[in-house]
Amino acid sequence: MTASAFDHPIVSGLLGDDEIGAQFSASAELSAMLGFEVALAEAEAAEGLIPAEAAHAIAALPEVFLADLDALKQSIGRDGVVIPDLVRQWRAALGEHGKLLHFGATSQDAIDTGLMLRLTAVLSILDQRLAAVATALDGLDTRFGAKPLMGRTRMQAAIPITVSDRLTSWKSPVVAHKAAVQGMLESGLPLQFGGAAGTLEKLGDKALAVRGRLADLLSLADRPQWHSQRSVIADIGGLLAQITGSLGKIGQDLALMADNGTAVIGGGGASSAMPHKRNPVKAEVLVTLARFNAVQISGLHQALVHEQERSGAAWTLEWMILPQMAIATGAATRLATDLLLSIEDLGER
Amino acid sequence: MTASAFDHPIVSGLLGDDEIGAQFSASAELSAMLGFEVALAEAEAAEGLIPAEAAHAIAALPEVFLADLDALKQSIGRDGVVIPDLVRQWRAALGEHGKLLHFGATSQDAIDTGLMLRLTAVLSILDQRLAAVATALDGLDTRFGAKPLMGRTRMQAAIPITVSDRLTSWKSPVVAHKAAVQGMLESGLPLQFGGAAGTLEKLGDKALAVRGRLADLLSLADRPQWHSQRSVIADIGGLLAQITGSLGKIGQDLALMADNGTAVIGGGGASSAMPHKRNPVKAEVLVTLARFNAVQISGLHQALVHEQERSGAAWTLEWMILPQMAIATGAATRLATDLLLSIEDLGER
Amino acid sequence: MTASAFDHPIVSGLLGDDEIGAQFSASAELSAMLGFEVALAEAEAAEGLIPAEAAHAIAALPEVFLADLDALKQSIGRDGVVIPDLVRQWRAALGEHGKLLHFGATSQDAIDTGLMLRLTAVLSILDQRLAAVATALDGLDTRFGAKPLMGRTRMQAAIPITVSDRLTSWKSPVVAHKAAVQGMLESGLPLQFGGAAGTLEKLGDKALAVRGRLADLLSLADRPQWHSQRSVIADIGGLLAQITGSLGKIGQDLALMADNGTAVIGGGGASSAMPHKRNPVKAEVLVTLARFNAVQISGLHQALVHEQERSGAAWTLEWMILPQMAIATGAATRLATDLLLSIEDLGER
Amino acid sequence: MTASAFDHPIVSGLLGDDEIGAQFSASAELSAMLGFEVALAEAEAAEGLIPAEAAHAIAALPEVFLADLDALKQSIGRDGVVIPDLVRQWRAALGEHGKLLHFGATSQDAIDTGLMLRLTAVLSILDQRLAAVATALDGLDTRFGAKPLMGRTRMQAAIPITVSDRLTSWKSPVVAHKAAVQGMLESGLPLQFGGAAGTLEKLGDKALAVRGRLADLLSLADRPQWHSQRSVIADIGGLLAQITGSLGKIGQDLALMADNGTAVIGGGGASSAMPHKRNPVKAEVLVTLARFNAVQISGLHQALVHEQERSGAAWTLEWMILPQMAIATGAATRLATDLLLSIEDLGER
Repeated sequence: MTASAFDHPIVSGLLGDDEIGAQFSASAELSAMLGFEVALAEAEAAEGLIPAEAAHAIAALPEVFLADLDALKQSIGRDGVVIPDLVRQWRAALGEHGKLLHFGATSQDAIDTGLMLRLTAVLSILDQRLAAVATALDGLDTRFGAKPLMGRTRMQAAIPITVSDRLTSWKSPVVAHKAAVQGMLESGLPLQFGGAAGTLEKLGDKALAVRGRLADLLSLADRPQWHSQRSVIADIGGLLAQITGSLGKIGQDLALMADNGTAVIGGGGASSAMPHKRNPVKAEVLVTLARFNAVQISGLHQALVHEQERSGAAWTLEWMILPQMAIATGAATRLATDLLLSIEDLGER
Repeated sequence: MTASAFDHPIVSGLLGDDEIGAQFSASAELSAMLGFEVALAEAEAAEGLIPAEAAHAIAALPEVFLADLDALKQSIGRDGVVIPDLVRQWRAALGEHGKLLHFGATSQDAIDTGLMLRLTAVLSILDQRLAAVATALDGLDTRFGAKPLMGRTRMQAAIPITVSDRLTSWKSPVVAHKAAVQGMLESGLPLQFGGAAGTLEKLGDKALAVRGRLADLLSLADRPQWHSQRSVIADIGGLLAQITGSLGKIGQDLALMADNGTAVIGGGGASSAMPHKRNPVKAEVLVTLARFNAVQISGLHQALVHEQERSGAAWTLEWMILPQMAIATGAATRLATDLLLSIEDLGER
Repeated sequence: MTASAFDHPIVSGLLGDDEIGAQFSASAELSAMLGFEVALAEAEAAEGLIPAEAAHAIAALPEVFLADLDALKQSIGRDGVVIPDLVRQWRAALGEHGKLLHFGATSQDAIDTGLMLRLTAVLSILDQRLAAVATALDGLDTRFGAKPLMGRTRMQAAIPITVSDRLTSWKSPVVAHKAAVQGMLESGLPLQFGGAAGTLEKLGDKALAVRGRLADLLSLADRPQWHSQRSVIADIGGLLAQITGSLGKIGQDLALMADNGTAVIGGGGASSAMPHKRNPVKAEVLVTLARFNAVQISGLHQALVHEQERSGAAWTLEWMILPQMAIATGAATRLATDLLLSIEDLGER
Repeated sequence: MTASAFDHPIVSGLLGDDEIGAQFSASAELSAMLGFEVALAEAEAAEGLIPAEAAHAIAALPEVFLADLDALKQSIGRDGVVIPDLVRQWRAALGEHGKLLHFGATSQDAIDTGLMLRLTAVLSILDQRLAAVATALDGLDTRFGAKPLMGRTRMQAAIPITVSDRLTSWKSPVVAHKAAVQGMLESGLPLQFGGAAGTLEKLGDKALAVRGRLADLLSLADRPQWHSQRSVIADIGGLLAQITGSLGKIGQDLALMADNGTAVIGGGGASSAMPHKRNPVKAEVLVTLARFNAVQISGLHQALVHEQERSGAAWTLEWMILPQMAIATGAATRLATDLLLSIEDLGER
């Protein structure tokens, strides 16, 4: 079953992104959540809430644990989240120390924190990818920047500009988005740790100390629980959609330039009916990905209406949307660089 | 890589739909497109455009052909569509008759028609599913319909109604949507067949006769090409979103009723922090799926701005959205029936 | 205060529609709701639920009643709907018969039925407008249809077609949308009449008879109450967005054709910096209106999650979206006809 | 014609915001654009590009100029923007110095910069409004914070928390959004100044000096032209939608709390059918406004695909969406404060 273009064994060749997609595999997800549990045990042991030997046992779990995916798939249909059965499996694998794993935590702590760990990796990849886009744009500027180009406003010839003028308008948002990505990485994505209803009620006066240690161990920002306050998700989604939007503008421009002869794009796609054609496929797909993310961002904002201490309805909606936005953004950065590097000429003929 | 909740090895246990999902597998897609080519050859042979032996050879292809998925994945990254390389593979498998396969057709003919064949299957499944939802609602009406229920308007107690009154408000749209699905099935989803630029220019005066035969062979409606006129996609998407919307209303109501004690839902999900809880997971997920499709439908309407004879940008956007909407709708019908059948009591205590 | 481009004293010159906009004035709204009350009284009198003289008095009310808009504006901030204070004003104007106005009805009956009356007028206008678009397309076909045009797929020259081929692809959805509009008008938009919680509990065994008479008097379809089942709103919105989407495709094509010289559009907009330019403003705005409605349709589907017997949250969302979609659609039909009639040449030079 | 709930003479009593709405009146818009022209003339005079007496004459224009709105409404239907005719009117009013007004500028410079000036005022208002919301939350914490409240996850009772715990989850995003608003105000919204195609080609080597002076005079940030790079619009829209989203969560919670008796809200709306009811109207409307902005944000991201040097299609879409998002956000802050101040009790009874 391949519902998503990103997972599709064929279509992912066009729309997928192996590197960012890997962050949204089930194994990456399980691994990140277990990483949360290991760090939690270490933090709780350091604060004397659980014995050191329990923490050691838990720390060894990633080496040996193999999830029963069928049981998880079965249980999530009943529980709505993977954690209850996964905690059961982890505890069974641990034996006597099992009951101390996940102490004081709840589903959202493991799932949201696991997501933040993987999104940190995603942002690091995007940081490099945006640098590559900017470099490719610089390369074009060096080669073709001085050439004349007819500036076009409202789909009509306006006044002459240079290729460099247009390249600058493409590069400027890329640089800004890269700075925004770096800003997020520098301040750190936030740890989620609140316990059953956000109050860390089982940790008593050690709650803040454990949370601080946990954040340090995971290289996340130490923040009060945000499990019913989803701005962080909408913020990240907004940045992803900004990136695809700005790259979509480049794609739209290049498709128009290929059509009117002011861009010569190498490679390009074949047509089954017209073997002579060379379609500006990557340019078009940049537009597709921009519009896709522009649609999806609406869902992350709908999910801000997250009722009470935890909304199953709103939270599940995030799962259906954010991973695809991230992969779409990865694909857009990959395609943008490929497209820009394949350009053979820019400017008036 | 599992970008989509529908394909995810774990989360699909909550949000997936095996039966409808199967229609969006790569193999179902390849098979439907080859079905188009086989029928096309038969129609063209019947009109004397290609020799009967070529049509026979092509008709035998589905038995023996095994796609090289890696080559397809590679080529779609260049061509933007799967058909050029797939036609190459099909023709290679056919040998001498190969050049007559896909005669007069273009990518969109095979892909869109293949989609219509699979959506016909999807609609048939939804027809049965909606019948099951209606039956489950009838069962509840028999058991609990006469019981009193406080009618609630604007989130406040209003005046007493009966359980039957509320069940009627749930059932009425389900019945209407089922009728709409049946209406689509009865008029038939439209064949797409236009050739390179929609004019069937290679078929000469046999164009309409071939198109008519092709539609008959595939049990689709014989319509002029619609490859740049995408209302049919937005129409189907609109119906899917209507279904999830109406089921989402049921889910929202049941989550509120479970909360205030006017519904007792059996089963229900566990919490990792609070083993005593029984969460109305399926009710919440119905809301999620409604909001998901309400987000997605926007993308299908954006794709109506389909420039010139074929827009790569707009068309690709449909691929990213419509399959997920179909599976979400399947999941919603499945979950709604499960949820309704699990109800142990309705009405004031 | 002019939040909306449709009401803006300047921008409405570009984006507004006087004729359809008029259906969404406060006075049209108040008038439609009072029309509901008058017909209700007549139907209830015919069934012996209220005295004939009360119905006569109510029938005379539209001649003399002048709403206190300030009081209505004040009260809606408290009540969330206009009806409680409006009923108070109507009753005060009626004197002794006042208490029999609105008998057995609730806010949603007056507001939703009033909306259906106005949307019937909107659909009639759109029916004529779509006919005008189709006629303008026919005129172009007569003048330029035989001329050659390079078919363009994926933003690249494909194979030669004729101007008539492209015009056909523009006209076909217009004709289909016109048929859909007529279908809605023929089956009739549905009366909403359910009383406080949808059960018409105050009308006893006369409920269905009153509802039938009421529907006849208002030329609406007699249907069970749908106040928590909002498919009708999403259906109408879907049709509006389909219309703007199909006209947006025409606008996008014409903007591209004006750019590459295969369309010569008369008139066209001035630039403050470049007086020589003639911008294809109406073509661009058709794209804008298509994308606007494609965004908005998402909100009408979100509003399908309409909890319990009446959701203030979901219902109010419809008010914010549907009128603008209707006016956008009106503006698109107006602009499309203007644009098509201003075309001076089509096809290759 | 009152297409928008924000402008509607009645419904604006519920959904409008006089203070923020005032920033989107035609007069505020004309005034802001003339402010741009005055400052531009001053900056150009200081750099010796135009005579000082011309700048003085232009500086006096706001005192005397009265726009011919009918002519503007007429011309925008042709030009797509108000500036060509407005510049004509301004120049006519100036007489001999007229030709030096708008020197080197284009429509987008005046319109986008005028918008930034008004959005600066909007952000200042929102800053104060968010402070008021936070203060109201603090007041509730003082009065009811220590009271017990059942924490609720997935629409079910979970474990006991305090009213303060929930108030903290409401306040934390409000504080974060206020900081984001302040951050935008401190860095300054960006001046847009680029001339016909973004290159300030008429200003020669004085271009950057004029731009710097102009930014200073208008208290905007001095930035390279961004007329085809619309991230700033999507950023502001994203923040607006975040605000309404977080306030929508408060509204959703309070509607649920009013229903289950853990919140007593004073005032509240009347029902036409059930005079005894007190509906949590403001709480519901906060949800409405959140969902409205969550829908609209999609349109601002669609508008990022802004082709070439200026896209009429994408730019016009912003005009249709951003003002309403700003007013919706204003209304949400107003209603949230009113609602919070009207609370008479919070917590378990």
